Amino acid sequence: MKFNIALLAGDGIGPEVIDQAVKVSDAVAKKFGHEITWKPALTGAAAIDAVGEPYPDETHDVCVASDAVLFGAIGHPRFDNDPSAKVRPEQGLLKMRKKLGLFANVRPTFTFPSLIDKSPLKRERIEGTDLVFLRELTGGIYFGEKGRRDEGETAYDNCVYTRAEVQRLAKKGFELAMARSKKLCCVDKANVLETSRLWRETVQAMEKDYPEVEVSYEFVDAVAMRLVQWPNSYDVLITENLFGDILTDEASVISGSMGLMPSASMGSDIALFEPIHGSYPQATGLNIANPLATVLSAAMMFETAFNLPEEGAAIRDVVNKSLSEGVVTEDLANGEKAYGTQEVGDWLAANI
Amino acid sequence: MKFNIALLAGDGIGPEVIDQAVKVSDAVAKKFGHEITWKPALTGAAAIDAVGEPYPDETHDVCVASDAVLFGAIGHPRFDNDPSAKVRPEQGLLKMRKKLGLFANVRPTFTFPSLIDKSPLKRERIEGTDLVFLRELTGGIYFGEKGRRDEGETAYDNCVYTRAEVQRLAKKGFELAMARSKKLCCVDKANVLETSRLWRETVQAMEKDYPEVEVSYEFVDAVAMRLVQWPNSYDVLITENLFGDILTDEASVISGSMGLMPSASMGSDIALFEPIHGSYPQATGLNIANPLATVLSAAMMFETAFNLPEEGAAIRDVVNKSLSEGVVTEDLANGEKAYGTQEVGDWLAANI
Ligand SMILES: CC(C)[C@H](C(=O)O)[C@@H](O)C(=O)O
Ligand SMILES: CC(C)[C@H](C(=O)O)[C@@H](O)C(=O)O
Repeated sequence: MKFNIALLAGDGIGPEVIDQAVKVSDAVAKKFGHEITWKPALTGAAAIDAVGEPYPDETHDVCVASDAVLFGAIGHPRFDNDPSAKVRPEQGLLKMRKKLGLFANVRPTFTFPSLIDKSPLKRERIEGTDLVFLRELTGGIYFGEKGRRDEGETAYDNCVYTRAEVQRLAKKGFELAMARSKKLCCVDKANVLETSRLWRETVQAMEKDYPEVEVSYEFVDAVAMRLVQWPNSYDVLITENLFGDILTDEASVISGSMGLMPSASMGSDIALFEPIHGSYPQATGLNIANPLATVLSAAMMFETAFNLPEEGAAIRDVVNKSLSEGVVTEDLANGEKAYGTQEVGDWLAANI
Repeated sequence: MKFNIALLAGDGIGPEVIDQAVKVSDAVAKKFGHEITWKPALTGAAAIDAVGEPYPDETHDVCVASDAVLFGAIGHPRFDNDPSAKVRPEQGLLKMRKKLGLFANVRPTFTFPSLIDKSPLKRERIEGTDLVFLRELTGGIYFGEKGRRDEGETAYDNCVYTRAEVQRLAKKGFELAMARSKKLCCVDKANVLETSRLWRETVQAMEKDYPEVEVSYEFVDAVAMRLVQWPNSYDVLITENLFGDILTDEASVISGSMGLMPSASMGSDIALFEPIHGSYPQATGLNIANPLATVLSAAMMFETAFNLPEEGAAIRDVVNKSLSEGVVTEDLANGEKAYGTQEVGDWLAANI
């Protein structure tokens, strides 16, 4: 098969980790007789510097014309402490999600047996953890009207959801639950927020269409606790944009494998794949960033976007092999020899 | 001295744990020659059942006429899965916070050496953790306009903050930081939300008034991670209402001492003291709930509302004694003999 893949490296360590995912994907393509054409395009602070816009129209055109998007990371500290900055890298990310219609962000958290002792949690708390968050990605307070009034003295952000937005996300949640252990948790703050009450009533109404799925409803604050206490008690969780932002990041560190967690963002058409970690500016250019989350995002791409499970499995296998043979970056090296970002990528590509 | 204390037991285990705090407070008062008059009043589901309103005017009058409020917990599962319920216990809580002007919620998280192994986190991750959240409690998305349009198909919640609201909370944060290790972390989502940008710019402008305080700014998702990874790297954190709800609950479980964490809510006038845990409906009436968080909330009341540090210390000491002598409820009993809620309260009062 032939694929065009938009390649959005972004900022910080983005370009370095993306390079390794490209190597590994090319190696898989070669092995299985596919042909990938990579379409690099600008995004984030890198795009602001080049063309004054974090998600330029040309980049959007490249994405739309591709079969999938592979994304690195965006964000730059230069913008973070300047509340008055007019253009921010993050705006590009949000614009991209919206324009590509990526309303469902799939974020798994699972453990690697060989990395369990890296977790801040005790072994017995995380063993067997294998959960997936479905985070709504194009609605809520991220996209509602926001601004100032009273000469800048009052700020506001509007959180808005329609029933249709909840339904399409929840539908993916129910389907994912059916494909897994048939347990679905709807995370909201229905005791306070009207949008959460809409979420809860919408999901409740859908229960009858999936009689086999056992649905639970939990408040976001309770989930923030139980994720630390008994992460392995969860399976599929669905939630709105902001709660998903906070909880998926929280979940990502419990496994001890933050640098390994991939994610996918999907809509009706194109899908985007990216590591959960951020742009990690302090590590930029040092050849120390762990590329595995991006490599595993490429695996998700083969499986989900191209429906090629064997190719995905080949990537997962070689990642597991690198872990068990200790071909890892310093974050996983346990005081033993650490490999560089590139060396890990080369090794993975060579061992596919 | 003579005090009037409003006693709002609330729902679930609220009445049981409040009873123990009353016993212990009375014992301390007796020992130090004070006189407490308790003024019980209805709140929560209990108040809905009795008078159709979760925070009746009479209750408000009792609070306003008192020197402090001691609060149990509210919430009842009967309301949680009914998105269309017209009156909810939580509304009472929010109305109370608003009408009493309790804009600053102080939530410490600390460890008890004897309980460290109860934590889901590894010992080396939590040892030495001693942090305090200051959560804004009467603004933000909890109190903004909310409702439906499009015949119920669209729901909205407005998040609003004024500079003055941020300033008064941040002021308490800076003051607390000055009294502790002079480290302050402002938690926001300034890369996405306009209200967060107002928070950040307001706190930045206040830095010059507290030149000794070292201020850091972190995104809420990053804090959700670091709280699990390195909780002991934090000291004083300030944040808005919803982020505070999620993060303080997350923080409360890392110490392994959830059932022991007290909190205070303050404004310009009266202050309220309550355990961090909820109404724990499953345990209602079973005499198994841990009363220590409420008892320690009473200690905070003596210290903060009445400026009586010795009385507070007497309560803390007897709590520590109960822990080291194993006079504890089943959640802390480690398979050894467990005491009932009342027995723990009796023991504490007798040993003051
Ligand atoms: C960079 C930021 C805007 C973004 C978000 O909040 O969605 C990030 O935290 C994420 O989770 O992808
Ligand atoms: C019961 C609920 C409305 C409340 C809140 O969200 O503030 C509770 O979770 C708390 O933190 O005190």
